[in-house]
Formats: sequence, structure tokens, C-alpha cells
Amino acid sequence: MSLIFKQLFERESCTYTYLIADSDSKEAAIVDAVDIMMDRDKALLEELELDLKFIIETHIHADHITSACPLKKYYPNARIVIGMENVDAEACSDIMVNEGHILNIGKYEIATIETPGHTIGCISYLVENKLLTGDALFIRSTGRCDFQGGSAESLYDSIQKLFKLPDTTEVYPAHDYNGLSMSTIGEEKKFNTMIKESYDQKAFIKNVNNLNLGLPKKIKVAVPANQSCGLIS
Amino acid sequence: MSLIFKQLFERESCTYTYLIADSDSKEAAIVDAVDIMMDRDKALLEELELDLKFIIETHIHADHITSACPLKKYYPNARIVIGMENVDAEACSDIMVNEGHILNIGKYEIATIETPGHTIGCISYLVENKLLTGDALFIRSTGRCDFQGGSAESLYDSIQKLFKLPDTTEVYPAHDYNGLSMSTIGEEKKFNTMIKESYDQKAFIKNVNNLNLGLPKKIKVAVPANQSCGLIS
Repeated sequence: MSLIFKQLFERESCTYTYLIADSDSKEAAIVDAVDIMMDRDKALLEELELDLKFIIETHIHADHITSACPLKKYYPNARIVIGMENVDAEACSDIMVNEGHILNIGKYEIATIETPGHTIGCISYLVENKLLTGDALFIRSTGRCDFQGGSAESLYDSIQKLFKLPDTTEVYPAHDYNGLSMSTIGEEKKFNTMIKESYDQKAFIKNVNNLNLGLPKKIKVAVPANQSCGLIS
Repeated sequence: MSLIFKQLFERESCTYTYLIADSDSKEAAIVDAVDIMMDRDKALLEELELDLKFIIETHIHADHITSACPLKKYYPNARIVIGMENVDAEACSDIMVNEGHILNIGKYEIATIETPGHTIGCISYLVENKLLTGDALFIRSTGRCDFQGGSAESLYDSIQKLFKLPDTTEVYPAHDYNGLSMSTIGEEKKFNTMIKESYDQKAFIKNVNNLNLGLPKKIKVAVPANQSCGLIS
């Protein structure tokens, strides 16, 4: 049959969660699930009779708490997946991925692409022509680079790597604060205000340094909780 | 090439706006555009070099103000489209539609389906396999029926009509309050808490009567403004 692909939104932190599944085998993955939306996500998995195989994080989030561990209580066979550089999360996660890892969901493959820069351990995930960019590439913007091992130099290189994907590749970020839901690599190369194709690395670093953002409200709670995959001690 | 289909969100009233376009001809339609998001929507139309042909309303909204008239100032050739029963909006709209009207966007056809019940003049719009249901059918719920000529009896009949579409038809509502973005007719027939397939008209009317909702905060401003297609006197 077909790929089930659902974008889900959490309004407080403007986080997008993604549900990916094979409608034949019923195998499923959830990406960047948020603790306060777990009832919604669990209901959807149950209604669609999905077998949750992977609970995937694009990175250690600073603005909300993941529902990875709490979800796993209901789906004990699910594997928690996170980027290999997130050494603090090694104890709670099941699969530490780096470049080129393949996660199989029925007949679909989710491929990993290392995209450090927002944090040291950011991973983007590609399924069919849909690219989940986490906080690396936003719609018309990018993630910040001022904590958790962030580096504007690395983020520039990561996004250049994503820009090599076909222009028609659909971009699904982990956040949008302006109600945009998806974009394409072609659009971002042309219109991204931080890193459009014509900007060199120096221009991008200047843009990132000029962001001047306050710290996320929940950072002191969220980062340690997410280093434990959502288990709050 | 292909259909451009973008779902856009306004967080205050949890409204979904839709941008529909033919990537070849660049002809476009926007459905249920919100006044406070006009700058975002205009920027997107400009970036994608779209020629706005139709500004479409699913109904006279009570919870937010449309940007129809303000948008038309920038796109004077665009036609404002609304259901024929909305007689108060006749003066400001260009095309009053009823069942079976076809709006052409390049090689794509947007077909109208009368779905009264939430209000007397609600229209759903179908393009390819994507159904824009306005406030008739929500994801796992339905619109309320207690003002603007609302009728639970009519809404039941309207949704039964939508339920005759193929199960794979994708459902895109005008609102979701729980971060769900899309569904299918098959899912709603099974899981809609107000009107799943096994509920008869009597059960649905009881469910609607039990909603017990307060009036939308902006109703006294929004309804008259939207009867003027977003012109506030």
C-alpha cells in the first residue's frame, strides 16, 4: 500500500513530531515525540494498529522533554535511536547512529545524515523524498549554535550537505514558529534568510551570531531529562 | 510538474490555511487565510512567484478574521469565493458557489461540495485526493452547530456525503486544537468520536448537543468582519 506520514504539532514549544509507518507491515517510527502529547500519540498508534519499532530523536532537545522512555513502557520492543555523539544519552538509548545508518520500517528505509552544528549530536533522517531536519535546517531559518556543543561552522557544512539533495526533497523541521509546515530543499536554497545558496560560511556565521536569543525557558530541566531519554529523576 | 499544497497554521485560533497551486502555470488559490498571518502568506506567494487566482472561504468564520479583502488589494485579479448561502457576504465576494462548482488552478480542478451544518453556508473543497472540510469534519470531531444557521441534522447529512468519498481521501480541516494535521475519510469513519460510521443521526445530534462550548471570543467582531470578507468598518 503506502507510506503513512503524519506531522503532529505541540503548541507550547512549537515542536513538530513525525509519525512514519508502512501501512502494510504496520511497522512504525516516531520522531521527536513530546512528553505532554504522549496520550495523543499513543491513541494514534493504537487506532492505526501500528507496531512502534523506533523512537527516534533528532538531538537532545533544550525546549521540551521527549516522551521516548515513557512511550517505551507501552511499546517495550521499540528501540530508542539517537546520534552517536550524544554520549550522555548512551545509557538510555538502544541504537546510537552516525552517517549512513539505515532503519527499516517495513519496506521503507529511514537513512541517517549527520548534521551537527545546532548541537554536537544532531542527525537528520531521510525517508523517500522526505527529510526530517530537526533543528539543523528550519523553514527560512536554521537552529541556533550557542549551547550543547553548537558550532556555526559545523552547521554551515551540515546544511551544505543537505543542499546537495534534490531540490524537490521535502523539508520537515522539528520546529516552526510561524505556522509553516514544510518546505523543499529548492525553496531553502533560494529563500532561507540565514543560509541561502549565495551566502558563504562567513556570512552564515555572522547571521547565527546576530540571532541574540534568550535561553529556552525549560533548558535546565529539559536537557538533563532528555539525556535520560525523558526519564525525570 | 506537480501540485503545490501547503498547510499553514495560525496558533491563536488554531486555524489551518491552505495554499494550493500548479507549479507549472503558477496559478494559485488560498483557502481560509487569516488576517494576522497575511504578511507570511504574501511572502510565500511572492517567493513562489504564484499568481493568486482565488481567495476561498469554507464559511463565515466566527473565531478569526479573514484576510480576503486585504489580500485582494495586493492581487486585484484574485476572485473571492464563498458558499452561495452566505447572502450577507454577497456584496464583497466575486464568486458564490454551490454544489459541483469547479475552480480551475492550472491543470488542477478544485470541486465544491455543499456541507452545511456548522453554518448554513459551509462548503468543502476537493482537489485531487485532498478534501478541505472547513468546520464540517474535524480530525476525530466535527464543527459545532449552535449559531450562524447551524443544524446538527444538516451536518450529519453533510458528513454522510463526505463519507461516500474513497477511504484514502485525505482530510484537511480548518482547525485542529490538538496538533493533528491531517486524516483520511477511512480513519474518520472508524475513529471520529462524534460521528463514526456506526453512529446514527440521533446519536450524532446528541453528541453535538452535549458539546457545551462557550461562544468564540471574537465572534462579535469576526462574524460582521467576515460578512464583509475581512473589511472592518
